[in-house]
Amino acid sequence: MFPSPIRIETPALVIREEVALRNIERFQWHCDDNGLNLRPHVKTHKCVHFARAQVAAGATGITCQKIGEAEVMADGGIDDILIAYNILGNRKLGRLRSLAERTKALSVVADNDVVVDGLSKEFETASRPLTVLVECDTGGRRCGAQTPERAITLARRIATLPGIQFGGLMTYPAVGGQRDVLGFMTLAKAGIEACGLACSAVSSGGSPDMWHARSHDGTITEYRAGTYVFNDRSLVERATCAWEDCAGRIVATVVSVPSEGRAIIDAGSKILTTDLLGLEGFGHLVGHPQARITGLSEEHGIVRCGPGDRLEVGDQVNIVPNHICVVTNMVDNAWLERTAGGMSVLTIDARGKLC
Amino acid sequence: MFPSPIRIETPALVIREEVALRNIERFQWHCDDNGLNLRPHVKTHKCVHFARAQVAAGATGITCQKIGEAEVMADGGIDDILIAYNILGNRKLGRLRSLAERTKALSVVADNDVVVDGLSKEFETASRPLTVLVECDTGGRRCGAQTPERAITLARRIATLPGIQFGGLMTYPAVGGQRDVLGFMTLAKAGIEACGLACSAVSSGGSPDMWHARSHDGTITEYRAGTYVFNDRSLVERATCAWEDCAGRIVATVVSVPSEGRAIIDAGSKILTTDLLGLEGFGHLVGHPQARITGLSEEHGIVRCGPGDRLEVGDQVNIVPNHICVVTNMVDNAWLERTAGGMSVLTIDARGKLC
Repeated sequence: MFPSPIRIETPALVIREEVALRNIERFQWHCDDNGLNLRPHVKTHKCVHFARAQVAAGATGITCQKIGEAEVMADGGIDDILIAYNILGNRKLGRLRSLAERTKALSVVADNDVVVDGLSKEFETASRPLTVLVECDTGGRRCGAQTPERAITLARRIATLPGIQFGGLMTYPAVGGQRDVLGFMTLAKAGIEACGLACSAVSSGGSPDMWHARSHDGTITEYRAGTYVFNDRSLVERATCAWEDCAGRIVATVVSVPSEGRAIIDAGSKILTTDLLGLEGFGHLVGHPQARITGLSEEHGIVRCGPGDRLEVGDQVNIVPNHICVVTNMVDNAWLERTAGGMSVLTIDARGKLC
Repeated sequence: MFPSPIRIETPALVIREEVALRNIERFQWHCDDNGLNLRPHVKTHKCVHFARAQVAAGATGITCQKIGEAEVMADGGIDDILIAYNILGNRKLGRLRSLAERTKALSVVADNDVVVDGLSKEFETASRPLTVLVECDTGGRRCGAQTPERAITLARRIATLPGIQFGGLMTYPAVGGQRDVLGFMTLAKAGIEACGLACSAVSSGGSPDMWHARSHDGTITEYRAGTYVFNDRSLVERATCAWEDCAGRIVATVVSVPSEGRAIIDAGSKILTTDLLGLEGFGHLVGHPQARITGLSEEHGIVRCGPGDRLEVGDQVNIVPNHICVVTNMVDNAWLERTAGGMSVLTIDARGKLC
């Protein structure tokens, strides 16, 4: 999977460009074939480099979670951005307005009156209205209008207030919940259209179910996926991808073999994170199928070796992380293994953009 | 605990300087009273500001885990640094040598021959020898020589090789394992001294057991603690400190109350991290004793409210994180609530210094 033996300072995140670009291309084809616009979520890579690659491959635009991420992407020339988050507070609203003035298409979501009213108040004196989608809770139990009726009421409020315009519906479904999405969205869309409003976008998402995504005769118009660009152990374990589709891995060094069957690596929770996503162990050690990363402290990973594993002090190992989206966010820079050969520094442009 | 209502862009890490300085002072007194040198671990704050405060309060020097952290601290004028890690690889060894040339006292640890030999080779042409301590595994089951005999052998090897000098013993014990430390270290120290070698430092550590730290008639000379500077929920739950001793909290905003008893805050795993440290829930919501942070996605925290909790969209909440050391590492900057009043930006100087 990772053919080139490299000696770099560790721990480090290494991204294989060829694999990432293939992931981008393949899912773009899937969306094209299934009548869906693809709006990748940049939370996984947080890099202008890969956002541009996604748009070049045919993506409608991108999705961000934070204004800070969107600002970085706008600086990088991405001009169609959905911020899939309730934006609140004077400072954030001011930044959102500035961002809207320098992007071709900026949209946000809202699931409650306080957010909708705040957006309207900020944008009523803006040069053009802000597009607002209604976030719907189709079973993911996070944010979102709880019923189609509530989504319809919010859509009407958005359409009525100055400064903003209704742009459609958005949901982040539970894994395996695409059927629930369809039921909720069909009802909400019909109710909204019955009020004389256009529901131009109906956006669903999530990498785990990405290969089941389709438009269902035009009801779903758009799909948002993030993790698919690099993939990770959680998606392999869910059979969404294969190990060879994982573009990102942590390279770590064995710093100690204090006793038989125990090796210590220099990757701990400050790079791998403690995200388990329901899995056992803190990552997949490539080439050591019986070894388990059984524990992490901040800068140490504890490896329980299998009978056949010969790990020695100084060895470098490759780890496919459980959850790549949070790992990328731990580093200012990664190594990019170029398709043409060689390595270059990949700046994680929007790392740590929390606001 | 956090009297000043503040409205800042969220999520954000806020550090109350008065509490941090009090924590520094109190544990310094404890070490002074118990015949221990204190060598605080900077992994928790990663700030030159607080490292200087620790040294000013009487600390012998500081502890770092990574060369990158030590470089930042040396740049900030800290000149007595222990890097409590096995250093391996040509690039890291080269950086270590450069660092040694510009610090008054630099030391590292080693628990195996490969590391010891690499240090010797790098430093044999240096202007002065590098001090190397032997790391001992006193039950923590991470790195370290497994027996006092092995520690003695390594000490002799260090003393024999050019470029390096033996500096003593170091361990990171299991929580509650100070008794094991004493047994191991007493045997190892006696054996080393019987070989005619001085064992000038015997260093133990860990915030959870910090109030039990003492020299045991001079056997233990030094204590390393990190978390105590800010404290966190894990240390409160272990009765090491009280809530009012927690200097750091995350300020978050309620962005949605989608259904009765469920509130969504804008702090997720990209700031709180998923570290549980054996606890239930992802942090302590100050002033809402019945509320639980039951789940995190990357930018959302899911709060299950108790019967008396009235959380509304737009409310700001304060969270004492489970594990402050990894939270500090998520942000480039924190807010410092000054003892004299007012807020200033606190740069987390060594954030993300993984190598």
